[in-house]
Amino acid sequence: MKKRKSKRRPRAISAEPLSIQLLEDDKRPLFVQIREHIVELVSRDVLKEGMRLPPIRELARQLHVNQITVAKAYRDLSGSGVIDGRRGGGSFVSAKPERNLAMQRPEINRPLLAERLFELAHAPGVIAFTSNYPRVDSATKQLLADCIREATETSLEDCLQYDPPHGRFELREQIRTYFETQKLRAGLDNIVVTSGAQQAIDLSIRALAEPDSSVLVERPAYYGVLNSCRAAGVRIFEVPLQSDGIDLGVVRQYLIRHRPKLICTNPTFQNPSGISMSLEKRRALLDLCRKHGVIVLEDDHSPELRFGGKPIPSIRSLAEEDDLVIYARGFGKVFLPGMRVGCLVAPHSLIPRLLAAKAQADLHSNSFVQEITARYLARNDLARRVDRLCREYSARQRVVYDGLREGMPAGTEIVRPEGGLSLWLTLPNGADVSELYFRAVRRGVAFVSGDVFYASPSAVRSLRISFGLNKEDELAEGVARLCSVVDDLLGRSAIRSAAMT
Amino acid sequence: MKKRKSKRRPRAISAEPLSIQLLEDDKRPLFVQIREHIVELVSRDVLKEGMRLPPIRELARQLHVNQITVAKAYRDLSGSGVIDGRRGGGSFVSAKPERNLAMQRPEINRPLLAERLFELAHAPGVIAFTSNYPRVDSATKQLLADCIREATETSLEDCLQYDPPHGRFELREQIRTYFETQKLRAGLDNIVVTSGAQQAIDLSIRALAEPDSSVLVERPAYYGVLNSCRAAGVRIFEVPLQSDGIDLGVVRQYLIRHRPKLICTNPTFQNPSGISMSLEKRRALLDLCRKHGVIVLEDDHSPELRFGGKPIPSIRSLAEEDDLVIYARGFGKVFLPGMRVGCLVAPHSLIPRLLAAKAQADLHSNSFVQEITARYLARNDLARRVDRLCREYSARQRVVYDGLREGMPAGTEIVRPEGGLSLWLTLPNGADVSELYFRAVRRGVAFVSGDVFYASPSAVRSLRISFGLNKEDELAEGVARLCSVVDDLLGRSAIRSAAMT
Repeated sequence: MKKRKSKRRPRAISAEPLSIQLLEDDKRPLFVQIREHIVELVSRDVLKEGMRLPPIRELARQLHVNQITVAKAYRDLSGSGVIDGRRGGGSFVSAKPERNLAMQRPEINRPLLAERLFELAHAPGVIAFTSNYPRVDSATKQLLADCIREATETSLEDCLQYDPPHGRFELREQIRTYFETQKLRAGLDNIVVTSGAQQAIDLSIRALAEPDSSVLVERPAYYGVLNSCRAAGVRIFEVPLQSDGIDLGVVRQYLIRHRPKLICTNPTFQNPSGISMSLEKRRALLDLCRKHGVIVLEDDHSPELRFGGKPIPSIRSLAEEDDLVIYARGFGKVFLPGMRVGCLVAPHSLIPRLLAAKAQADLHSNSFVQEITARYLARNDLARRVDRLCREYSARQRVVYDGLREGMPAGTEIVRPEGGLSLWLTLPNGADVSELYFRAVRRGVAFVSGDVFYASPSAVRSLRISFGLNKEDELAEGVARLCSVVDDLLGRSAIRSAAMT
Repeated sequence: MKKRKSKRRPRAISAEPLSIQLLEDDKRPLFVQIREHIVELVSRDVLKEGMRLPPIRELARQLHVNQITVAKAYRDLSGSGVIDGRRGGGSFVSAKPERNLAMQRPEINRPLLAERLFELAHAPGVIAFTSNYPRVDSATKQLLADCIREATETSLEDCLQYDPPHGRFELREQIRTYFETQKLRAGLDNIVVTSGAQQAIDLSIRALAEPDSSVLVERPAYYGVLNSCRAAGVRIFEVPLQSDGIDLGVVRQYLIRHRPKLICTNPTFQNPSGISMSLEKRRALLDLCRKHGVIVLEDDHSPELRFGGKPIPSIRSLAEEDDLVIYARGFGKVFLPGMRVGCLVAPHSLIPRLLAAKAQADLHSNSFVQEITARYLARNDLARRVDRLCREYSARQRVVYDGLREGMPAGTEIVRPEGGLSLWLTLPNGADVSELYFRAVRRGVAFVSGDVFYASPSAVRSLRISFGLNKEDELAEGVARLCSVVDDLLGRSAIRSAAMT
């Protein structure tokens, strides 16, 4: 143990073509670190197909590690198809597209994220910055109760039957009317009611991307998108986000190289990064969609929750009716959390496949809840609710943002989005978010660890802080606890590192 | 046209190993008929892997068709991998397991069954024997309304949050209690709440059978099972049903030959055949499950709706806790139609994968509906409702069964199940169910055409008649209409056939 520890000094060696940093704070075995670094370089296309990796002996020397350690990393990479040693004399970045698939096998045995988040949200003494749902005020609750009473009195019998897979007429009619206020035009036949946005996303991926086809996602991306891609057995290609949205240069490369079926994007207040795609990029992405015949799946969770800046139209609202843009929308993040009502808006050409997938997934969404939601939307109370939410959440965002700015160490990056219910934070080099997560929970504060937002996570230093369900007076306290844990983690390691040099 | 018509006389030629009947009434092109016959023989294992098909010239002579017709059929079969001509000198039944996959690509562009059924059920003037949901009496409706009111008053706020993917504690507790009355023991952690039985089935197939793995289904089988299998990209192997359930001889062969991941069965009042599996077979199937490590997915839609005979325990209730038997149950067919509440009971070893699939499909089922259902189950009104339904539906079944026995032509087979909401009818040789379907709808009566219950449908002569939602006075009239259409169809073709010979 001692011997090994003494080797774990910070190393920063640039090898052609490998630039790998092994970090003092990384608790993972060295061969895992090396392996993950290489995966990262491959996924970022720094290491391209066919490139030669340094010989084992050379990389071992550069990193001051045992040759066996590097050999082990290479063997793992070869086993999962990332690199290829068959040409003799060296290891090469594999040209097989299977490497993405192999890298992204879901780890079935790790605790389910949804379960963990639910448990944390209910753990006594833990301030959980984990929920992207908003709190529901008493006026909304009363209104909803009225809608439930009405639906029970007048439509209950009618709801105790089979419904068509695309959803109840009344609800689609209300959705259409509401979307018109958002400049999004849709015919009734273009709308499919789903059980929340997650189902809308899952059905789209399942219906439109066959196993082994390629799908582009943003890096980072909502984990629900990644999970659906994994389950569908598609090849996931991650496209980095820039401050104005997805990197279109990389999208263009991937369109030519991998001919993806689908591009998944969340252009407004992206979950988790908070980034919004500029209008220019939305138009350019639409052009690419037309030019390459690729389908754009636009996940739009809460465009109404904008506190600043100018609203940007959704890609779907910029598109012509038959453009291959699917709009996935849940109503939980703004209007009715927990009711699991959402919808898809899609061009006619894609509707049959989406409907077939819906029927096969669960025949149709709950009729009574559709009826309640239709009545709720018809009451036209949405502007009041949006107004209230924007005021409340912009104040919350300020408390959390200011607290983090003040309390987090130098080098921390915080994206402050123009809306939404969360913030995205990237800690300075050397921070281990898994370790931070466990320490934080013990200290009574929880967040969503950034690694779940990456198809191929590697040395992730980011975390998502959502302030949807917290009580007002918890916010500052929660942030203070988090800052103190980070301080402790980074400070302590700095001291340790100093003592060892 | 004339020339071709004159060739379409009934032919019944037994070739070694081909026994093919080309029927006068079959409106499909001859090459399609020949192709489908061969697919059928392969799927029934009459034609086994490696067997040689008759030369084109010989089969053409036997069937009195042009050689080009047979060649076209063989070419199609070769294209979809069913047969193989590579060894020269003849065509052989392909040994590649891919043939099943190729045969069962979903036909995306055909009208969606769920849509068609919904439309028919609401078409004025059509008596639709299409719904397997029961009518809800006013006492049940009142009780449900009470539960909704209570849930609104006491739990609405609590429902406007994320729930865990396995479902609300209160509902799982009530499900557990109810299942105990059915001799089915389950821990709370063995239960996953789903959005209806369809989702329970879909999640199981999706989570447990990888693409290209083999799944055994009953022949015929519920189309929801077939659709989920198709979407999951698994190889479907159909096992014929006998009068006491699935043919275990064939199951044993397939277990050894294809090593399936999953056996899907609906042992009680099978949908669509109405057949119930004997207790002996259930035990034997459980033994096979243990011996081969194959998972049994037991779909149990309405075991309570038994009008005669002795109740047979579910396979899950015969199993030990860790046996690989999954029990899929919806509550729509007996208790709460249209509410889309169901559940899975599964051994602990399978729960993580099922939960992951649930979270990825739609995070969790609607919280408020779960709350309502929990309260409904807690009221313990189930015995009264089951009693009422059994009395009502046994009387309905009698009306429909007697009407069909009296009005259908000789040679019609009707299975009269000991319970459930439908009857399964097989018409005499020569009947074309697709043609019957279109004629029947024009005459104001609808049913579910048997072909949707087959993975590889071929000359299907069966139909499902469900009497769940019809008004009492419609039953006899609907049956009379159907009998008259059948009479007309078979009678007219007999006359035509006589005129041509």
